[in-house]
Amino acid sequence: MQMADIGLIGLAVMGENLVMNMESKGFTVAVYNRTLERVKHFVEGRAKDKNIIGTYSIAELVNHLKKPRRVMMMVKAGAAVDNLIEQLLEHLEPGDIIIDGGNSHFPDTMRRCAYVESHGLLYAGVGVSGGEEGALHGPSLMPGGSPAAWPQIKGILQAICAKVSDGSPCCDWVGENGAGHFVKMVHNGIEYGDMQLICEAYQLMRDGLGMSAQEMSNVFAQWNNTELDSYLIEITAEILAYKDTDGAPIVDKILDTAGQKGTGKWTAIAALDEGVPLTLIGESVWARSLSAHKEERIAAAEAFGRQITPVTGDKEQFIECIRQALYASKIISYAQGYALMRSAAKTYGWNLNYGGIALIWRGGCIIRSAFLGKIEEAFHRDADLQNLLLDPYFCGEIKKLVPAWRTVVSTAVNSGIPCPAFAAALSYFDGYTSGRLSANLLQAQRDYFGAHTYERLDAPRGQFFHTNWTGHGGDTSAATYSV
Amino acid sequence: MQMADIGLIGLAVMGENLVMNMESKGFTVAVYNRTLERVKHFVEGRAKDKNIIGTYSIAELVNHLKKPRRVMMMVKAGAAVDNLIEQLLEHLEPGDIIIDGGNSHFPDTMRRCAYVESHGLLYAGVGVSGGEEGALHGPSLMPGGSPAAWPQIKGILQAICAKVSDGSPCCDWVGENGAGHFVKMVHNGIEYGDMQLICEAYQLMRDGLGMSAQEMSNVFAQWNNTELDSYLIEITAEILAYKDTDGAPIVDKILDTAGQKGTGKWTAIAALDEGVPLTLIGESVWARSLSAHKEERIAAAEAFGRQITPVTGDKEQFIECIRQALYASKIISYAQGYALMRSAAKTYGWNLNYGGIALIWRGGCIIRSAFLGKIEEAFHRDADLQNLLLDPYFCGEIKKLVPAWRTVVSTAVNSGIPCPAFAAALSYFDGYTSGRLSANLLQAQRDYFGAHTYERLDAPRGQFFHTNWTGHGGDTSAATYSV
Repeated sequence: MQMADIGLIGLAVMGENLVMNMESKGFTVAVYNRTLERVKHFVEGRAKDKNIIGTYSIAELVNHLKKPRRVMMMVKAGAAVDNLIEQLLEHLEPGDIIIDGGNSHFPDTMRRCAYVESHGLLYAGVGVSGGEEGALHGPSLMPGGSPAAWPQIKGILQAICAKVSDGSPCCDWVGENGAGHFVKMVHNGIEYGDMQLICEAYQLMRDGLGMSAQEMSNVFAQWNNTELDSYLIEITAEILAYKDTDGAPIVDKILDTAGQKGTGKWTAIAALDEGVPLTLIGESVWARSLSAHKEERIAAAEAFGRQITPVTGDKEQFIECIRQALYASKIISYAQGYALMRSAAKTYGWNLNYGGIALIWRGGCIIRSAFLGKIEEAFHRDADLQNLLLDPYFCGEIKKLVPAWRTVVSTAVNSGIPCPAFAAALSYFDGYTSGRLSANLLQAQRDYFGAHTYERLDAPRGQFFHTNWTGHGGDTSAATYSV
Repeated sequence: MQMADIGLIGLAVMGENLVMNMESKGFTVAVYNRTLERVKHFVEGRAKDKNIIGTYSIAELVNHLKKPRRVMMMVKAGAAVDNLIEQLLEHLEPGDIIIDGGNSHFPDTMRRCAYVESHGLLYAGVGVSGGEEGALHGPSLMPGGSPAAWPQIKGILQAICAKVSDGSPCCDWVGENGAGHFVKMVHNGIEYGDMQLICEAYQLMRDGLGMSAQEMSNVFAQWNNTELDSYLIEITAEILAYKDTDGAPIVDKILDTAGQKGTGKWTAIAALDEGVPLTLIGESVWARSLSAHKEERIAAAEAFGRQITPVTGDKEQFIECIRQALYASKIISYAQGYALMRSAAKTYGWNLNYGGIALIWRGGCIIRSAFLGKIEEAFHRDADLQNLLLDPYFCGEIKKLVPAWRTVVSTAVNSGIPCPAFAAALSYFDGYTSGRLSANLLQAQRDYFGAHTYERLDAPRGQFFHTNWTGHGGDTSAATYSV
């Protein structure tokens, strides 16, 4: 009987393409899918005459694997993963490795890792990015889980992953238990942000400057030769140039209601839980929610008789301002995302390698870009960098970009073109670089109505004061609010 | 033995004041606190010679209550509530009522309600707002839980709550299980938003116009005679006028790092879960997080050499623009908050009375304002109103406010004064009133890299298309991503 190097469960587009990728790198892969026709369809189709073994039960799959057995699940995140783990535990034995390559939520991966380890097996939660193309030709991989699993899966994962120009793999160990899926989640959140920023630049050109899809395609193609060089900018140029069967730009015929799979939402929730401002990604998630209410928006547009004020002045110059605003906002988004990872690493005890994460993302995944090389350099200069904005390179870049950025946001505001992510990024920058904000008034309000106490500029931190603002509120402060 | 109408556990500031309030309305209250000295301190102090019975164990407390027994917990949200419920269940009997008046998270209240009901008792989760002053003189109360509990607690709650000018109580039944605490949570989120808006107006005047605390106090006092008439505007005027012992404004000496108790965060998370844009409250929560990083902000301010560009032009006119921007942003915040309640009611099967909620909030609580009367009127016109912005009154108001609002946000952007909530509100308005957004490009991107499919403007909703953008991606769409 032919024995496989790895088993893969779940033959949707990502699973199929990963299998094809593994096989092309010399690995024999056993496959299984709950709906058995897909196994048959696959092995008689794309997998024909390859070292791919179709199996029709979990038991048969497991029997075809070399030891220690490696089984990768590529199934819908959620209960399906737990069910599969239970089925696998019936057939696997200590030392075998269960790998989850789906978009699982990191707390689930933390729980599952401990559970599988308690049975003497090893677990890996691997973030896989790159979409169907990446899965086939080389994804970006973010493995975390049982540290002892890494030597057993490193060979396959680093063989199939994307490589950057110097040949180094876009896959390295991220950290214990849920760290891989956490970093993948932040990747997805950043992806939401990157896409939203491109959409805002697009809308400014479309509605503010009245540009055609082809004109905008040319602009994005040019931008791809600047600091913005990235996969998403590249495909945006291609999308805008793509013609429907009637020769008209297909983008103009697509409904403007965005879907989401929830990982951007998870990132924003994690940031709220950590108390880390992740405003750009938050706006990006909510922009998708807002877009979904198409009928309500049409009704509101009519009720308000809303009209866009066209942007006047030098067109080429404003396009360059948009590019700079996009670039500045993108720096903010990554600064916020990295701040989130830094906070979570502290919370969960992960020893994250921030520069290494930038390298993993540099190729293969949806957010791959030249820009990530600059982030890697920043963490190479200072592995303990508190915020990307405090790195000399990014500080210098932002300083150059600020005037154009302010021009674009204020122009959008005056024209009535929504730019929630550009604006949130600038608000964050203006807040982050303010030594003195307005929260002193907020603390006074909280002390006024809730006796929450406050600290003072002229007293040491950690010393709390309460003012009896009204003269009749009593001296009981909320610090005593406990039983 | 003297028997009490209600028992109250937890003698921190809110608990003590609620007891004093109940007693002043003719109810006899038995009290208990885990730290027993507080019971003694209370009954020998503020509670002396009142119809307040100090007890020193749960058993003693329960023995002092008329049947059906009513026990209100005013303790820290979380495990303390669960522990108390367990202790109470040992001493109470079927038909008795456990009331949680703390800031419990609504899913906890849903769980506890079912749990307590399974023991044959009744449960109420009551949102209490108004801070220490409100607790003493009349809070706003948002009761939810076991419907059969309402007739048993209505008398006491409607006696102690705030009353609006026509005498109607700021307390009415909200809905089943966790509805009361959900509505209280949204109240708190809105409170975060209201406070942030005031702080942004303050910072624009302080940093943009160089105004003194006393000057700003006068402005807020004037604003309190306009549509902004509200408790928070009123106390802001008082806070800004409050002088320290040396005669200088105390607000200038308070540290600008804001605290939070987590309920604003919960509101933002609920909105992410519901897919409802709650951008203003989200920014308000994150503004508090950002303020907490004082040292990092000081370092960033130095690194960037940041300076505010003063606002020029007619000062009085700009102050009026700020007022209008605050008012417009406030409408957006409430529109978003009500949209969240509408969505959650559908999710959890609550039959919320939106106009009634506005009336509950109209007095007694931190966000009490004349404005809430206008919201009640809007839901009186149309109980099924989809969004506050679609109500003719608020639509008309916003139309008048838009020019000043755009002026303030663009001025803030150009001056470098962070106004995240003003800006987020305007972005939402511009997005909500756009019949066509940019999400068509986003859907094209998602289909390009992930085969997520899209809908078309020229095809019926629910019909999904996939384009093979690159010519080599395969025809498998992500719709088949399941096992």
